[in-house]
Amino acid sequence: MLVNNTHYRTIWSEDQHVYVIDQRVLPHNFSILKLSTLADMCHAIHDMAVRGAGLIGASAGFGMALAAQEWANTKNTNNLDTYMFIAAQKLCATRPTAVNLQHATNRVLAACSNEKNIDDKIHAIQKTAQVIANEDAEFCRKIGEHGLKIIEEIYARKKDTVNILTHCNAGWLAFVDYGSALSPIYLAKEKNIPVHIWVDETRPRNQGASLTAWELLSADIPHSVIADNTGGHLMQHNMVDMVIVGADRVTRQGDVANKIGTYLKALAAFDNKIPFYVALPSSTFDFSIKNGVEEIPIELRSSTEVKYISGLMKNNKANSVLLTPKKSKAVNYAFDVTPARLVTKLITERGTVSPNENDILATFNDVIRH
Amino acid sequence: MLVNNTHYRTIWSEDQHVYVIDQRVLPHNFSILKLSTLADMCHAIHDMAVRGAGLIGASAGFGMALAAQEWANTKNTNNLDTYMFIAAQKLCATRPTAVNLQHATNRVLAACSNEKNIDDKIHAIQKTAQVIANEDAEFCRKIGEHGLKIIEEIYARKKDTVNILTHCNAGWLAFVDYGSALSPIYLAKEKNIPVHIWVDETRPRNQGASLTAWELLSADIPHSVIADNTGGHLMQHNMVDMVIVGADRVTRQGDVANKIGTYLKALAAFDNKIPFYVALPSSTFDFSIKNGVEEIPIELRSSTEVKYISGLMKNNKANSVLLTPKKSKAVNYAFDVTPARLVTKLITERGTVSPNENDILATFNDVIRH
Repeated sequence: MLVNNTHYRTIWSEDQHVYVIDQRVLPHNFSILKLSTLADMCHAIHDMAVRGAGLIGASAGFGMALAAQEWANTKNTNNLDTYMFIAAQKLCATRPTAVNLQHATNRVLAACSNEKNIDDKIHAIQKTAQVIANEDAEFCRKIGEHGLKIIEEIYARKKDTVNILTHCNAGWLAFVDYGSALSPIYLAKEKNIPVHIWVDETRPRNQGASLTAWELLSADIPHSVIADNTGGHLMQHNMVDMVIVGADRVTRQGDVANKIGTYLKALAAFDNKIPFYVALPSSTFDFSIKNGVEEIPIELRSSTEVKYISGLMKNNKANSVLLTPKKSKAVNYAFDVTPARLVTKLITERGTVSPNENDILATFNDVIRH
Repeated sequence: MLVNNTHYRTIWSEDQHVYVIDQRVLPHNFSILKLSTLADMCHAIHDMAVRGAGLIGASAGFGMALAAQEWANTKNTNNLDTYMFIAAQKLCATRPTAVNLQHATNRVLAACSNEKNIDDKIHAIQKTAQVIANEDAEFCRKIGEHGLKIIEEIYARKKDTVNILTHCNAGWLAFVDYGSALSPIYLAKEKNIPVHIWVDETRPRNQGASLTAWELLSADIPHSVIADNTGGHLMQHNMVDMVIVGADRVTRQGDVANKIGTYLKALAAFDNKIPFYVALPSSTFDFSIKNGVEEIPIELRSSTEVKYISGLMKNNKANSVLLTPKKSKAVNYAFDVTPARLVTKLITERGTVSPNENDILATFNDVIRH
């Protein structure tokens, strides 16, 4: 997408380094981070310099490429396959909920083990990392096209601004380009369909207030930031036409792990008969599990993310402030699971799919990883 | 309640002034604010130096007393009754959702008009203000006793720590003393029943993170502050035994206006079969209306409360930081309405009442204001 008239992806590889947009300093600063080692990449993922299901998948791919390069440069005593296996474990351990890390690392490992000699292995690793990133961007673009039809239908019926609520950031910053939940919105903007986005600020990390708002402002799309508490009231008063969110892991029966608080919005949408869509590339499916509430591990992050918040002071410097009494405890679950019964449709690169096992497996039978 | 071993109410009258705890600077500072005029009181309510249904009712009562005193001191050309009527209008305009403002000012006006001569009128105004405050504290204590039975029942069944989720602040800071939602919790603590409170931080004004956490910490009650997004996940995983919240206005059919986001927690409690209680003194009923979603006016506050947040910097000074892109819009509805169908019971000073018109009117028939 364009940032100050220059086209950017969120991640790219150049001269044996990987470059990413540092999402910790948005919306107040736009800064590029250079990553040169596997450890750099693991830290960038864990510390959320990069975040979002698709982007951390692509980051894991490029992280594997950095690991291969490290192996080649340091003449490590492990053989390359063992070294890569350990690298994959390190990358997967950075964030437990999003399944894209596992998909990406498994894919790179498979490409590596398919080759016999070292040069071919390293080449296959690097190529696969790039393919994962390109595919992510391509799939997101297709998700946009399928999601656009839904927005067009609402606009055709309503003949007035389509109000869309979204939670967290599932825009291009969460992927390599375009995004999942925001991709249809960008295409609607291109087609001059009037939209207005309700942006859940998405405490505690505020990805909505900082990243989604920044994306929409950059793309000149009308939006209003709201406290996460607000969506139910808006839905009760016909101020939301549809909800669209991303996902970090979706089970074979259509249960959706996404940023904490998504489940509450799904309940409110259901209670007010407002369609609730989940946009995801197929890399976000975990076909190995059924019951999301019982089976998806939920990341428990540091309580400091709840107790402190960063923002910009009047002097334009960023600062972190304490929100609670110093001695109060805080607990910080990063995701929750929305049961499939509350989801209207999944929007994938292959079109919209009903959130049930039959339809999901029928659509993705050929890509299921056994 | 005790603050550093001294007993405080949130508001009191002394030597023709009114004193309140300044709730804008908690939890980091404990500071008393002196109010001397009606305008002082209107500003304190609007700016939320005082807040919470019961406390703003008591504040309106004392605000009327300040107005009467002002009239006496300035020999205003309006007669006292007219002057008081205008004062009541000013006080009611400070916050549109909570009905306690109207109840308190109506009660003072009635006491005033019942007397013939000026001295008796002024005395009646001052006395009524004090009666409203005393009654608020007394009713909250009784709410605590009725709510305690519910906690005791859960503890008897579970024989382990009772986990209670609350939203916003309906503690003693929201009333004159004891509180509504937190009153049963204070009594449970006195009885050595082990409780743990999940404290919704309650964006945008963070009354949970700042006020409820401060109250619980002062009373040595175990608690964890959570982002407002978190409650649904906790309920899905059996980590919440009951929800208890306060109210700003409850209709004759039991619909509950309370801090924005309450409705989302009620939906999650209902979906997970967790009891959802609303604690309120009878002064919070609005018997004149039925349908809360349609009829209760919802306060729209400044967008700066969403875009900026205050907290404590490392140097122990309070500061406000910007959370969103400067040019992004924000929208700030302060309350939402939870339909009666999602409420398990109302806990009032007269005991628990089912949230339906028959039971509410049968319980409060003698206090209904026609």
